[in-house]
Amino acid sequence: MNTTVRPDLYPTRVTAQAFPQPRVDPTVWGEASGPLSKGQLDRYESSGYLVLDNLLSPQEVETYRAEMERLGTDPVLRASERVILEPESDQVRSVFEVEKVSELFAALLHSPRLIDVARQVLNSDVYIHQSRVNYKPGFGGAQFDWHSDFETWHSEDGMPRPRAFSVSIALSENYPFNGPLLVMPGTHKTFIPTVGETPPDFHKESLRVERLPVGSPGREHLSRMAEQHGIEHVTGPAGTAVMFDSNLLHASSGNITPFARSNIFIVYNSVENTLDAPFAAPKPRPQHLGNREFPV
Amino acid sequence: MNTTVRPDLYPTRVTAQAFPQPRVDPTVWGEASGPLSKGQLDRYESSGYLVLDNLLSPQEVETYRAEMERLGTDPVLRASERVILEPESDQVRSVFEVEKVSELFAALLHSPRLIDVARQVLNSDVYIHQSRVNYKPGFGGAQFDWHSDFETWHSEDGMPRPRAFSVSIALSENYPFNGPLLVMPGTHKTFIPTVGETPPDFHKESLRVERLPVGSPGREHLSRMAEQHGIEHVTGPAGTAVMFDSNLLHASSGNITPFARSNIFIVYNSVENTLDAPFAAPKPRPQHLGNREFPV
Repeated sequence: MNTTVRPDLYPTRVTAQAFPQPRVDPTVWGEASGPLSKGQLDRYESSGYLVLDNLLSPQEVETYRAEMERLGTDPVLRASERVILEPESDQVRSVFEVEKVSELFAALLHSPRLIDVARQVLNSDVYIHQSRVNYKPGFGGAQFDWHSDFETWHSEDGMPRPRAFSVSIALSENYPFNGPLLVMPGTHKTFIPTVGETPPDFHKESLRVERLPVGSPGREHLSRMAEQHGIEHVTGPAGTAVMFDSNLLHASSGNITPFARSNIFIVYNSVENTLDAPFAAPKPRPQHLGNREFPV
Repeated sequence: MNTTVRPDLYPTRVTAQAFPQPRVDPTVWGEASGPLSKGQLDRYESSGYLVLDNLLSPQEVETYRAEMERLGTDPVLRASERVILEPESDQVRSVFEVEKVSELFAALLHSPRLIDVARQVLNSDVYIHQSRVNYKPGFGGAQFDWHSDFETWHSEDGMPRPRAFSVSIALSENYPFNGPLLVMPGTHKTFIPTVGETPPDFHKESLRVERLPVGSPGREHLSRMAEQHGIEHVTGPAGTAVMFDSNLLHASSGNITPFARSNIFIVYNSVENTLDAPFAAPKPRPQHLGNREFPV
């Protein structure tokens, strides 16, 4: 790979001060038609996220919960690097690449109700950049610090532009108090570089620690963004989905309640935005964290 | 002190299995008149907590915030055991016995708007069992595990019965996402013994750790209580107060937002319920955690 003369629209993991910059790319990439209404697209464009009520029926929730349990207790899978454990216990935190280990999840992740939304927003064909189920068990499911996913995917995976988004589909009720997704609406329009060089094999640490040493914006930027944009939490019954732009600042608190907060998490990326060499890391993260098999 | 032939209505810190028992004491202790309406008393009696809107005016909030800042930066005070720091930083978490180090707080804590409520609910004269200001700073204010205060006050301070309650007065807005008080309404009517002997000087640890090794009910009890009673969070603008029974199960999540969640915290106890020898600890906790100077 030749990485020497490549433009970088979103420099990050910088050595000294970080200066937030306006995002130079759109959020909704074109006029493609699809399942979302003009009103939904407008809300997504301005807030950086959109709630999709009843994406799954109660019966489907049951099916996928059972499948999640099956994956979480599969000893062969557990021995693979697709499984990440909680920081302070041996409970399963996440299983990655679920479309490769489960026909049920593969069918859902490739179904029109998701793919057609992705094609509409990204205005192109799409593929799965990453997928996982998050178990977020009760009694200590860990917090995630504030971050932009795109900042990581750009620096560590080599994703050129924020032409991607995530969908989180709730498999249990998201209450205000069991660690729901927190967002700062509108922050997807600002790119905040982070300070600090990416350590080798950083993903082995970053997926398990509670407080990110690298890859989270400075507190002065987070405070200013929170003052300007506020914070919202995404709650709703099992079956609710939320899609959010790859550059939206988000986080979640730890879960000290007995109620698990499980979800299916998928990242759709445009086929015109496939991965290159990392923009700010020694080498790419492994396949299960950032899909490099497309196009093959 | 002779502790050998003393009845213990609420045995706890037991060695093996803990069996929850119905509370044998009332929540509202009599028919005393006072500032609370019949409706408010009924809600408090059944839920175990009651929100008092606008207990402080915006001007008073400013006054007490400034006083809190003054206490938090006083170097002499900081060197005393009245000040507790956050588990993972040197930020001030709490200052205890604020009525002894601040004339402003002393006047508030002894004012009729609080004392008259306490006299009404506890049906007797009252005194301050404990007081503190909690700073709960943004970016990492720590969580508190689920617990009943009375379980601690009984075992470690020698409080005979749950004839006491706490008032938390918000000095900053309590959002759903910055670590507000979480309660399981109605659980004050069940006493759940905890398992494990109280270590010597346990308070030095218990006030700083995130997960209590002793003094928190077992997960099977917490799960059952949460299923039966649900969980509610207490939110509201600065100046809002919430009073809650000494035996109500409560907790709070960590605060990963930039928004601090500061409050004044006071425990009123009946003068007919003053402290005896601890029911399940080697020796009483220090004065600033459990007032033993009453009656003098």
